[in-house]
Amino acid sequence: MQDVLKVGIAGLGTVGASVVRLIAKRDNRLAEAAGRPIRVTAVTARSRKKDRGIDLSGVRWVSDAVTLAADPDIDVFVELMGGAEGPAKDAVEMALSKGKAVVTANKALLAAHGPALARKAEAKGVALNFEAAVAGGIPVIKTLRESLLGNTIERVYGILNGTCNYILTRMAEEGIAFEDCLKDAQKLGYAEADPTFDVDGFDTAHKLSLLTSLAFGTLVDTKGISIEGIRSIKPVDLRMAEELGYRVKLLGVAQRTADGVEQRVHPTFVPKDAAIAQVNGVLNAVAIDADAVDLTLVGPGAGGDATASAVIADIVDVARGHRTAPFIRPVAALTKPSRAPMTRHEGGYYIRLEVVDRPGTAARIASRMAQNNISLESIVQRRSGPVRGGTDPAAAAPAPVVLITYATTEAAVRRALKAMDSDGILIGAPQVIRIERD
Amino acid sequence: MQDVLKVGIAGLGTVGASVVRLIAKRDNRLAEAAGRPIRVTAVTARSRKKDRGIDLSGVRWVSDAVTLAADPDIDVFVELMGGAEGPAKDAVEMALSKGKAVVTANKALLAAHGPALARKAEAKGVALNFEAAVAGGIPVIKTLRESLLGNTIERVYGILNGTCNYILTRMAEEGIAFEDCLKDAQKLGYAEADPTFDVDGFDTAHKLSLLTSLAFGTLVDTKGISIEGIRSIKPVDLRMAEELGYRVKLLGVAQRTADGVEQRVHPTFVPKDAAIAQVNGVLNAVAIDADAVDLTLVGPGAGGDATASAVIADIVDVARGHRTAPFIRPVAALTKPSRAPMTRHEGGYYIRLEVVDRPGTAARIASRMAQNNISLESIVQRRSGPVRGGTDPAAAAPAPVVLITYATTEAAVRRALKAMDSDGILIGAPQVIRIERD
Repeated sequence: MQDVLKVGIAGLGTVGASVVRLIAKRDNRLAEAAGRPIRVTAVTARSRKKDRGIDLSGVRWVSDAVTLAADPDIDVFVELMGGAEGPAKDAVEMALSKGKAVVTANKALLAAHGPALARKAEAKGVALNFEAAVAGGIPVIKTLRESLLGNTIERVYGILNGTCNYILTRMAEEGIAFEDCLKDAQKLGYAEADPTFDVDGFDTAHKLSLLTSLAFGTLVDTKGISIEGIRSIKPVDLRMAEELGYRVKLLGVAQRTADGVEQRVHPTFVPKDAAIAQVNGVLNAVAIDADAVDLTLVGPGAGGDATASAVIADIVDVARGHRTAPFIRPVAALTKPSRAPMTRHEGGYYIRLEVVDRPGTAARIASRMAQNNISLESIVQRRSGPVRGGTDPAAAAPAPVVLITYATTEAAVRRALKAMDSDGILIGAPQVIRIERD
Repeated sequence: MQDVLKVGIAGLGTVGASVVRLIAKRDNRLAEAAGRPIRVTAVTARSRKKDRGIDLSGVRWVSDAVTLAADPDIDVFVELMGGAEGPAKDAVEMALSKGKAVVTANKALLAAHGPALARKAEAKGVALNFEAAVAGGIPVIKTLRESLLGNTIERVYGILNGTCNYILTRMAEEGIAFEDCLKDAQKLGYAEADPTFDVDGFDTAHKLSLLTSLAFGTLVDTKGISIEGIRSIKPVDLRMAEELGYRVKLLGVAQRTADGVEQRVHPTFVPKDAAIAQVNGVLNAVAIDADAVDLTLVGPGAGGDATASAVIADIVDVARGHRTAPFIRPVAALTKPSRAPMTRHEGGYYIRLEVVDRPGTAARIASRMAQNNISLESIVQRRSGPVRGGTDPAAAAPAPVVLITYATTEAAVRRALKAMDSDGILIGAPQVIRIERD
């Protein structure tokens, strides 16, 4: 058996503590599998005094992350601090410059600096592993890096943010508003005090940018992602989805098109019988469509133990001496993606309009759609209920109209809605949600 | 860049031909990913003349598999012939004895001789990879070998045979009989002329035995599996499942219990909203329940390209120099599993009885269940229709009774049914289907 693999961990939050605990728990099994013992030998974190419920006796405490990264007595540097800049980046760069393997769960760092860091790892011939950065405990990075190399991948998409999926699931099941769900999610620890990063789609976008690069051999291009969050989703949208045979999920989607690589994050109608439609609560899922196989992977996207499971897998790969280029091929072989503009996006659409209730409105909607070559699969018009304080329920009540289109383009939808707006028949902004077929 | 990895393939059926084709198609991408070119340089198959629609110019034709396995000019031997004994086994043993890496899709061979072959691979320090042997294009072997090592696994189960899943899906959707579905499956090439191996559960059992070993660190123990196929499933069972909120799937299940490792293959009621219940047609799925993560992987379980995708992933691992012990840990560290007897199995049951239609029968059923401490979640009694040729529809018609039990033991169910049989209230053999919760 070879020498002990000495692991240094920066960051002892929920994930870091789980890594320490699970490595100790699986000690002999890990050694058998890796062919050598794996030991956490040094750590650093913000507070040394905090009780984390883990045994740190015999583990060296190092003053800060950069010092730990440079420590000649560790073999792998595990970065679990987070943040695209500052100490996390400094420490990862230090570890790579010292020729140490790096394991990180930091999607923000990789979305911002992935290729630059990969180049450093390449130059030193060391691993830069980040299974935990995307979809937590689901081994999607390894699947893309190692299991699908015989495939040409056409599309990769998924539910990549548990906070959003939790909120959308509860909104659908209980018919409650976004704000109320968010408050509950915050109470339960499923959402941050500042939820922007999750609910506005940025977290999903970071993860998607890494999947895109791995799937298509392109440089990470976070800026090329069209991003919409879930704040605008109303209970009525979820009710209409149910009625029309769909579920609403915040998806990250990367797709090869004739116009280039399309990367988008938005609330999405998915057919109720698709595998991804069954993925509820804080679970994540990733679907990969390729020429030889279509796969769907479902599992926990966050949580201390689930994320630690991915971190440990990355560490075992280092212990086994298995090194894969961070983005599969050398950074020099990654291509600059040509960005497919969202206006060229093709697909079906759910459109919910509040329209003025006067004769000719329905005909006008139909003609504006027809003028833009948009065919309708369904059209639902229904009163939303009596007007508050009114005596005649029909008088001036804004009438919701829901349209499901067949495949069309984003540009056509935007033109049709703009025309309706000029016609003066719309009240407020239309709700537009893209449909994704499996 | 390192030297070319020279691949020799024995067997050019659908899978072998796909491997040749996809390696050629992905040539540069594979070289970038693996750090070296991968080339099929020699092959052998039954007929040299057959047109397989692939380019074999520049590929050496070797007389037989054992000769190919011993060929000093190949680096990896890929066995795609099938069969637990004979040429496949001889050739794999030859390749390993010559210190060559082996990639195989042969579950029968591994189920019968896995540990012995693994010991030979270990002695020579070469890879024995078999991703394609279980669930075709789903990377479940790699997931167990590499991604879940930080976990203690409690249960692994799945839909591992596409033929059975195709038949059960069509029976459920169209209400047609097993025999008719089987005939259609045979016509479509989804079932063999002799379907025994698939429909009686043996293929699932072979695959399950490999998953069990990987999940629990035990020696492959195919003989310890309780096996039931799907021949006895009637359309009425699928209708009742639908009505009661379930789907019927042929599952392979391996589970840790207080009595040892339980390995079983049988038709199973799964809750309709479980991820695995949505897996229809020839698709496969594997679910893994562990302490840190629960995963479900869904994808194609068979087919030339899908299986080739797994074979190519195994070949790339060899090209990259990544070697994992075939059963994760050294064979010497695998334990002999203590077999949990099926009589100790705990779970819910679907029981369909044909009973004599006379006063007191229902009370007798209820009391026999109660005597064996079996609690009932539902009981459904319904006439199956008028008796053919009779004038009074109720006269002597066998009445079907369907019971869904809460968790109980197999022994209790068997005792209760035996008692009912002694009571003379049963007509024909009861249908007993186990319920598996996700």
